[in-house]
Amino acid sequence: MTDDRRLRVALLGAGSVGSQVAALLLTHQDELADRAGVALDLVGIAVRDVDAPRDADLPRELFTTDAEGLIVGADIVIELMGGIEPAREYIALALNSGADVVTGNKALVATHGSELFDVADQVGATVSYEAAVAGAIPIIRPLRDSLAGDRVQRIMGIVNGTTNYILDRMDREGSDFDVVLADAQRLGYAEADPTGDVEGFDAAQKAAILASLAFHTAVPVDAVHREGITAIDKTVMDAARGAGYVIKLLAVCERLEGAAESPTGEAISVRVAPALVPRDHPLASVHGANNAVFVQAEAAGNLMFYGAGAGGVQTASAVLGDVVSAARRHIAGGVGVGESTRANLPVLPIGRVTTRYQITLDVSDEPGVLSTVAGILAEGRVSIATALQTVITEANGESGTARLVIGTHRALEQDLSDTVDRLAASGVVDRIVSVLRVEGD
Amino acid sequence: MTDDRRLRVALLGAGSVGSQVAALLLTHQDELADRAGVALDLVGIAVRDVDAPRDADLPRELFTTDAEGLIVGADIVIELMGGIEPAREYIALALNSGADVVTGNKALVATHGSELFDVADQVGATVSYEAAVAGAIPIIRPLRDSLAGDRVQRIMGIVNGTTNYILDRMDREGSDFDVVLADAQRLGYAEADPTGDVEGFDAAQKAAILASLAFHTAVPVDAVHREGITAIDKTVMDAARGAGYVIKLLAVCERLEGAAESPTGEAISVRVAPALVPRDHPLASVHGANNAVFVQAEAAGNLMFYGAGAGGVQTASAVLGDVVSAARRHIAGGVGVGESTRANLPVLPIGRVTTRYQITLDVSDEPGVLSTVAGILAEGRVSIATALQTVITEANGESGTARLVIGTHRALEQDLSDTVDRLAASGVVDRIVSVLRVEGD
Repeated sequence: MTDDRRLRVALLGAGSVGSQVAALLLTHQDELADRAGVALDLVGIAVRDVDAPRDADLPRELFTTDAEGLIVGADIVIELMGGIEPAREYIALALNSGADVVTGNKALVATHGSELFDVADQVGATVSYEAAVAGAIPIIRPLRDSLAGDRVQRIMGIVNGTTNYILDRMDREGSDFDVVLADAQRLGYAEADPTGDVEGFDAAQKAAILASLAFHTAVPVDAVHREGITAIDKTVMDAARGAGYVIKLLAVCERLEGAAESPTGEAISVRVAPALVPRDHPLASVHGANNAVFVQAEAAGNLMFYGAGAGGVQTASAVLGDVVSAARRHIAGGVGVGESTRANLPVLPIGRVTTRYQITLDVSDEPGVLSTVAGILAEGRVSIATALQTVITEANGESGTARLVIGTHRALEQDLSDTVDRLAASGVVDRIVSVLRVEGD
Repeated sequence: MTDDRRLRVALLGAGSVGSQVAALLLTHQDELADRAGVALDLVGIAVRDVDAPRDADLPRELFTTDAEGLIVGADIVIELMGGIEPAREYIALALNSGADVVTGNKALVATHGSELFDVADQVGATVSYEAAVAGAIPIIRPLRDSLAGDRVQRIMGIVNGTTNYILDRMDREGSDFDVVLADAQRLGYAEADPTGDVEGFDAAQKAAILASLAFHTAVPVDAVHREGITAIDKTVMDAARGAGYVIKLLAVCERLEGAAESPTGEAISVRVAPALVPRDHPLASVHGANNAVFVQAEAAGNLMFYGAGAGGVQTASAVLGDVVSAARRHIAGGVGVGESTRANLPVLPIGRVTTRYQITLDVSDEPGVLSTVAGILAEGRVSIATALQTVITEANGESGTARLVIGTHRALEQDLSDTVDRLAASGVVDRIVSVLRVEGD
């Protein structure tokens, strides 16, 4: 059944994922040929510096600095360089040279995906990117193919391992953000500059990719509302725990109804923010640097996909799955599965979203304060579901301050945010400790 | 982008899944056409009795008793009749008439899959069966495509919703098997004749399908070792709970090393049996009638896929995902992804498997008994990891009987089973309460 032809596979980049992909292509050559139905020859690895140290022991003669020379003549190009340029240019060159492309480059897919999918469509090739979201967890293919006959209503994803590691340790050990971050950096879970992870930029790129696929709509990464986790301190974490929640950085992609700007009334919201998740929700038990994507679909109901969200060899598994699929398609002929953006739903700004919230305030411990606060909420169209007031005691006695934790019914984000501004200016609130959305109940 | 052609879709069977598939094909016609890139016309539904009551309100003129007439001329045939014949004959007819086939028929795929995949290969068509295992949960495509570049080491699946519902309620409520089964039957979770579920026949079919895919080996359903859950009573459940385990009916598909009959030493074990799962394992928190498949792969590490394992509309989602994929392929040309059975690994009998076990015995409460039992185990090459002896007290005082719970290190099933026979014949054991494998630690 194996085709007599051999496919020429070119690899761009030999970082932690790239070098594992190369190693697996070489060591599992026979098995991969069996699965693909055609031999896969790794013909070269384009890097900036052929002498740089690598995670895997690879034949030196495979390395080249001539990426373009390698790309032209390849049947499958695997792009694992990261960054926008020259990755974008190289992928376009590969597609125009008749190659299928496999990439793990989430930044590129999130920002220039549509453009590259269009090129692929025109030339009858494919761009696959299972590795771009949630590492080894198959989520792109299930969304694109398995759920192609269903309607996704909501995705809630833990798609950034670094922040889940940090929040999980804060939750389980009661540690401070800074302490855990420093530890995560020491252990290699967080980078020296953690901004991309802790400010939610990485998760926002993945949210844009997931929302685009799930709602058949090109979602630009700029349209994703983004909040990081740096404001989550021990106090906020303790308050969440006390109320039966765990705080997770969630990528939420949601189908909304009743939007005037959409002919069908349908629109979407895409947001990345730390959120309160009920302890008994399946996402609450995703620990460490693991990822999980929870999908609610009209017919399928609730699905969850769980696994390692990062790691060189884990992510290499996702890349190789795409390579084998691309190889099968390459020899069988026929066009690939194009991306569908036909639904083209508007992405609503965060102010138009409704969720439940939990507002934690420090207020003066004196008569009438709760009534004032409740009045401001009612005026702002934010309905109170639960309220818990406790007096804060300090070592030398009562502090004169009370902690007020208010759970709301579903409210419009804009109303909520205006109301919080009015609370801050009311004179009875000493401090807004936290305002967090409750997701997943 | 939509093709001018329209695809003729024929449906065989209008039970709970079939009628939902028909309803979704009709109500979501435009959306499905967008996704598939071609219009999908449901041209008919073949049933035995056109006047039988259905779960969905469907146009009467679609129904026909002439299945063969409907099949010939269809582009896509969806088989949801169940059973072996005439489903097998109809699928062969569909493939030979140039149609792609989508089926949810696990019994047929498990017993005659290879034969049908061969026919599909010969005529250049596809047989898709995402709905055959774990309902709406995408598991077939991830195993076949996403993990195509990886090596699956082990699958542990909760793939039968009925038995999970029963075991979960027994665990959480401390109820008896018979009571919960009767309740499950009343609520529609179990059939009037529950044999297929509670004796593990249904799970064994799914295990054969999963193992075939994961290990690229045709696994006949007869090669699956099968034990049901009818011996799990309150006593066994309580003992498991006390030892920190929950009992789940698991389908385990495992790659084994060192088999003399295999040129590479590699072989597999496929078994369905109630097993002890540690409480902190992700499978332990799969409640109710939900399904989950836990996959351990060499590169990807641990993955879990979770969702509704049954239900008409949930399963219909999986069927429609396959229909849309088949439609894309049908218009794009090119051959489909064939099944790969090239690895062709031997399936070892259960006696050759090694796992940990927990043996629960009632023994005479007298001096020397533990020593006798320990001696029999040592002689049988079964090494004790933990042992807990408690005196059983009855209302009128001590019973003269002690409960002995022994956890073993990994032992060969054949040794274990011989040893249990010797224990039963030893004179010091009043009753073998349970012998269960420990999986997932």
